[in-house]
Amino acid sequence: MRIATLLLPLLLVSCAAPGGRRTVNPPDRTDGRPFSHGVLAGNTYYVAGTLGLDPETNAPPAAVEDEVRAMLDAFLAKLELVDMTMDDLVSVQVFCPDLSLYGAFNEVYATYFTEGYPVRAFIGSGELLRGCRFEMNGIAVRR
Amino acid sequence: MRIATLLLPLLLVSCAAPGGRRTVNPPDRTDGRPFSHGVLAGNTYYVAGTLGLDPETNAPPAAVEDEVRAMLDAFLAKLELVDMTMDDLVSVQVFCPDLSLYGAFNEVYATYFTEGYPVRAFIGSGELLRGCRFEMNGIAVRR
Amino acid sequence: MRIATLLLPLLLVSCAAPGGRRTVNPPDRTDGRPFSHGVLAGNTYYVAGTLGLDPETNAPPAAVEDEVRAMLDAFLAKLELVDMTMDDLVSVQVFCPDLSLYGAFNEVYATYFTEGYPVRAFIGSGELLRGCRFEMNGIAVRR
Repeated sequence: MRIATLLLPLLLVSCAAPGGRRTVNPPDRTDGRPFSHGVLAGNTYYVAGTLGLDPETNAPPAAVEDEVRAMLDAFLAKLELVDMTMDDLVSVQVFCPDLSLYGAFNEVYATYFTEGYPVRAFIGSGELLRGCRFEMNGIAVRR
Repeated sequence: MRIATLLLPLLLVSCAAPGGRRTVNPPDRTDGRPFSHGVLAGNTYYVAGTLGLDPETNAPPAAVEDEVRAMLDAFLAKLELVDMTMDDLVSVQVFCPDLSLYGAFNEVYATYFTEGYPVRAFIGSGELLRGCRFEMNGIAVRR
Repeated sequence: MRIATLLLPLLLVSCAAPGGRRTVNPPDRTDGRPFSHGVLAGNTYYVAGTLGLDPETNAPPAAVEDEVRAMLDAFLAKLELVDMTMDDLVSVQVFCPDLSLYGAFNEVYATYFTEGYPVRAFIGSGELLRGCRFEMNGIAVRR
């Protein structure tokens, strides 16, 4: 009886975890935009749409590869806020107004993963905010 | 032993809840389109892509702010079908063919939340159904 | 005490299941692209963006209805990799550069479901990969 009595509250906690959510933002965030960088609900972490910007100009870098890297680094930073990595991702969507960049995107993207890839949709979009060539959002599940 | 015997079935039920799904629709729905307004799977509620329409004309209102409000009210109505509010949302995507409306959208959008924002992707799209300027879909997790 | 002792490990396993992920691909896959066809995390299965292609030409079939069917068949094949069907889907997004195809899409789409529909967003997009007229991604939860 004692073991059951001790374990049952633990079970209740871990089962209850999928209910509820916690918004996640970098401690120094100041932009005031109406979205969180991440939201954690149980083991599942939702990551906001992310652009690849040069922090000095707040515009996308000139070279496509630099923009992809800037975007994936910013995306990874959102995962690291809850101690996750790209390998925790289960699903991403990439929006891109110019499909001729598909190959260049893939080449950089593939280097960010070591334990198999999340699912992905790569969608030809309209124009993106700040003139970016890519925007990515996704879902991760803690391993 | 009695307590464990009583509690175990409850635990099984709450753990099993993430499996299975329940489609959710307003009781008076008559359009017959091949999608549900919401689907509940355990604590997680998936909300269909939602437009902002004037119920009399079935077209978007002339003023941008009115369209945003109509869309968010329709979205909230889908959440209320399962006793949720905007504060239960963890993730949304907004599609918009005209990025110059980003600021106007944000101003109305921010007023619908009181406990922190879900993650969001704001994507420049092609044309939307019924000539709308915004379409939003999302995921909520019951608090 | 014995029943509790036997049942507790089972409970722990089923509660822990939502953590972790398993990438899923067809055994004969050879394209080497940096995404998985599916990712299973507990009871939830994420399905990659799927196009409707003629396997002989690797291009979309000429007739719209044939492309929709090819896409939905390829989507179903990804679900069947984990013994799911279209009726396990909770949420899909369909991207389409030409909204005049909405009616034709719906007619074929509706025939793939027997137990109520998932939520859906049908979004006017830019150009899609390989000149396709539709791309669909989604989430399923095992019944």
